[in-house]
Amino acid sequence: MLFMVEMDLSVPLTFDQKEFERLKLTEKNHFQELQRSGKWRHIWRVTGHYANVSIFDVDNNAELHDLLTGLPLYPFMTIKVTPLNRHPSSLHDDDR
Amino acid sequence: MLFMVEMDLSVPLTFDQKEFERLKLTEKNHFQELQRSGKWRHIWRVTGHYANVSIFDVDNNAELHDLLTGLPLYPFMTIKVTPLNRHPSSLHDDDR
Amino acid sequence: MLFMVEMDLSVPLTFDQKEFERLKLTEKNHFQELQRSGKWRHIWRVTGHYANVSIFDVDNNAELHDLLTGLPLYPFMTIKVTPLNRHPSSLHDDDR
Amino acid sequence: MLFMVEMDLSVPLTFDQKEFERLKLTEKNHFQELQRSGKWRHIWRVTGHYANVSIFDVDNNAELHDLLTGLPLYPFMTIKVTPLNRHPSSLHDDDR
Amino acid sequence: MLFMVEMDLSVPLTFDQKEFERLKLTEKNHFQELQRSGKWRHIWRVTGHYANVSIFDVDNNAELHDLLTGLPLYPFMTIKVTPLNRHPSSLHDDDR
Amino acid sequence: MLFMVEMDLSVPLTFDQKEFERLKLTEKNHFQELQRSGKWRHIWRVTGHYANVSIFDVDNNAELHDLLTGLPLYPFMTIKVTPLNRHPSSLHDDDR
Amino acid sequence: MLFMVEMDLSVPLTFDQKEFERLKLTEKNHFQELQRSGKWRHIWRVTGHYANVSIFDVDNNAELHDLLTGLPLYPFMTIKVTPLNRHPSSLHDDDR
Amino acid sequence: MLFMVEMDLSVPLTFDQKEFERLKLTEKNHFQELQRSGKWRHIWRVTGHYANVSIFDVDNNAELHDLLTGLPLYPFMTIKVTPLNRHPSSLHDDDR
Amino acid sequence: MLFMVEMDLSVPLTFDQKEFERLKLTEKNHFQELQRSGKWRHIWRVTGHYANVSIFDVDNNAELHDLLTGLPLYPFMTIKVTPLNRHPSSLHDDDR
Amino acid sequence: MLFMVEMDLSVPLTFDQKEFERLKLTEKNHFQELQRSGKWRHIWRVTGHYANVSIFDVDNNAELHDLLTGLPLYPFMTIKVTPLNRHPSSLHDDDR
Repeated sequence: MLFMVEMDLSVPLTFDQKEFERLKLTEKNHFQELQRSGKWRHIWRVTGHYANVSIFDVDNNAELHDLLTGLPLYPFMTIKVTPLNRHPSSLHDDDR
Repeated sequence: MLFMVEMDLSVPLTFDQKEFERLKLTEKNHFQELQRSGKWRHIWRVTGHYANVSIFDVDNNAELHDLLTGLPLYPFMTIKVTPLNRHPSSLHDDDR
Repeated sequence: MLFMVEMDLSVPLTFDQKEFERLKLTEKNHFQELQRSGKWRHIWRVTGHYANVSIFDVDNNAELHDLLTGLPLYPFMTIKVTPLNRHPSSLHDDDR
Repeated sequence: MLFMVEMDLSVPLTFDQKEFERLKLTEKNHFQELQRSGKWRHIWRVTGHYANVSIFDVDNNAELHDLLTGLPLYPFMTIKVTPLNRHPSSLHDDDR
Repeated sequence: MLFMVEMDLSVPLTFDQKEFERLKLTEKNHFQELQRSGKWRHIWRVTGHYANVSIFDVDNNAELHDLLTGLPLYPFMTIKVTPLNRHPSSLHDDDR
Repeated sequence: MLFMVEMDLSVPLTFDQKEFERLKLTEKNHFQELQRSGKWRHIWRVTGHYANVSIFDVDNNAELHDLLTGLPLYPFMTIKVTPLNRHPSSLHDDDR
Repeated sequence: MLFMVEMDLSVPLTFDQKEFERLKLTEKNHFQELQRSGKWRHIWRVTGHYANVSIFDVDNNAELHDLLTGLPLYPFMTIKVTPLNRHPSSLHDDDR
Repeated sequence: MLFMVEMDLSVPLTFDQKEFERLKLTEKNHFQELQRSGKWRHIWRVTGHYANVSIFDVDNNAELHDLLTGLPLYPFMTIKVTPLNRHPSSLHDDDR
Repeated sequence: MLFMVEMDLSVPLTFDQKEFERLKLTEKNHFQELQRSGKWRHIWRVTGHYANVSIFDVDNNAELHDLLTGLPLYPFMTIKVTPLNRHPSSLHDDDR
Repeated sequence: MLFMVEMDLSVPLTFDQKEFERLKLTEKNHFQELQRSGKWRHIWRVTGHYANVSIFDVDNNAELHDLLTGLPLYPFMTIKVTPLNRHPSSLHDDDR
């Protein structure tokens, strides 16, 4: 089941730089694991912003909730979740 | 170059049904041609709405403008364009 | 899988009254069939508005999309869809 | 009398973790007591958010006010209250 | 039980003047009956607008819904409903 | 002359509790004095919020400004001021 | 007593031109009478818009309401009313 | 050339009181100098708010920018700038 | 003196096509005359929208108002005007 | 390829002044280098605000992203990116 998730990150100017770099690295590993598993199907940077647009392919809402709230950078994110469907006119098999 | 385009359709209750069905069919053919060419890389329905989220892969802004304003249903759409980049952490070659 | 759907209805002052009454009756029958099937688990009126808050329990996003866009009064509605999860602290078995 | 209450929680990054865990536990017990009493009829998580949608069944506005402002996590919440009615088409007796 | 209701009226320029005057008169009679019954406790004009702020004292949400949707000018109104409580510091007995 | 004033209070989590309790007490006395004088004609709690809706009856804008900015809790408030008129259809003498 | 009133005009493309020109002329005469009386103290065009910012000096809210709703072009206006006070630091006697 | 400038002030609860009083006094002197020079033609308090509405008469945009950003309280302000024109119907010579 | 003007066009689906084409041609000639005179210094299309971003270099607000309201397509436009200054760090002489 | 970028700066009252002056100087040098290279084609101050409107001419979205996020003052900015096209009616060769 498909969802678009838009994640905007906001880091306070006073937050410890080293601690944030450490969290970013954990986030990256976490993300790539989910990408390999096929759960996190797509990710794109939003030009000019510390933000991304992502497509998730999960079994249900509960799984999506756990994936998102488990992200190391989740406390810094503003998140928007939009449920999607395969489009009936699409010719691509993998636009599921 | 990648762009997310969100299209919301609104059809006046008084608009001629047959004329709209004809436009929808033209739109579908138009869309599938662009999908085959690789320009319209992804399309998803927004659950519960007459709307879609799409990813375009075009040469430049001008090409995107011409594709969008050339759509048969363009006069019925509210459109939001968001420029995207390949994400540096992505492992997928085709998340370009 | 659970979704909250908020439906606001807006009927143009000039729309034919009899035709609208006919659509409302069809909608009511349609709704009660879905309620009996367990798909449309809850519905409440929003006080003072021609609007409702509903909880759907569906197999997936696609099923929800088809249910909503198939409603006879769908063309008069502004719709907001919010994916929900069972809450971990809930003691009620049927708050699924 | 029915009300929908939407609660969004926001916890400052600098807030003491242990103190917050303690408050969360008190909140959970508080919540389950209200759920058992039938006042807090439904609760659902909002997918991807530290937020819930709830349905309260209270005697009057004053009782709802006291329940909400008495929640241990109330100072962290943004709250939206929507008065609801039983829907005339509903077949379920407990959609009161 | 107390509610603030804000009503904004918008009449299309093309709506029949005589018909609207007739509706306004019915509305006025309707309103004064509710005012006499004590249900519609207060009403004030919003300066410079075709709008009012009102305080209702009703038995429950259902009664409020029926009063509002039964107003002859209801189809021309945008309505906002805010549940209120007696304020604990108030010295006035009738600020119930 | 009548004004509706909506006051929303927001107290930082880190603000000194005792100092705030002291300010609240001063505010209460201040408020009741104004209520007795007839300047602060009505006050209602907004259900579920640390907020009130009030009706002021003052000589002019300047007097309203001085009353509001002189409130001990003013620095914690977000305020909305709406000028009101007696409604021509009202039967109540004290809806002035 | 001073008020800022912002008036934005919107004329439907299909509205009869001659009738609108006639209304505009009546409005102008109406306005100049109010300006001469000192009630409509200032008026400025908003650059690039069919809109103005005005300062009224009236006896009370009721008078302002009657002046505004009596304007021939009132049905075409979106209006915002802001109560003002003389500023304590002002050196100009006529900034009352 | 005329501009409306709306200035809203927001002072953090933790900001040093004495330092702010000192800045306010400097602001007042600064303001009165500009008022005497005719650049700051009008100023009004917004009732109930720490805010003002002002009319500036400057040579050009650059001069307005320098006046505003040079105000001692500028770092506490949210500012909205609206370019204005003399209104063609105005009878007052000084509504320039 | 510099201004950014953002123009969004919205043409009703029922508006006469030929009449609109005629207006567009008049607009184009009108625009190019202003461009040649140096008043309309820059114009860009907003990708995917029937809209443009423009930079005007005019003598004062009044001239800008007359230029904009004199455009043949002005009645179809939503307009936003932002006064600009030459930037102090700019190395380009023509960024005036 | 052209983009409009709107940058609004917000500096916390408590941020170290000297450190900010140092960052501003680095920003200025950085900016002028980009201006000389032709990437940052235009920049204008927004009158009355610590903000600018800029036009970038870059090879693609990725280059724009790197330029913007590499700015020394980027952590203080709220940024809005709008893709632009050359306008078909423009007579200026350099409005590319």
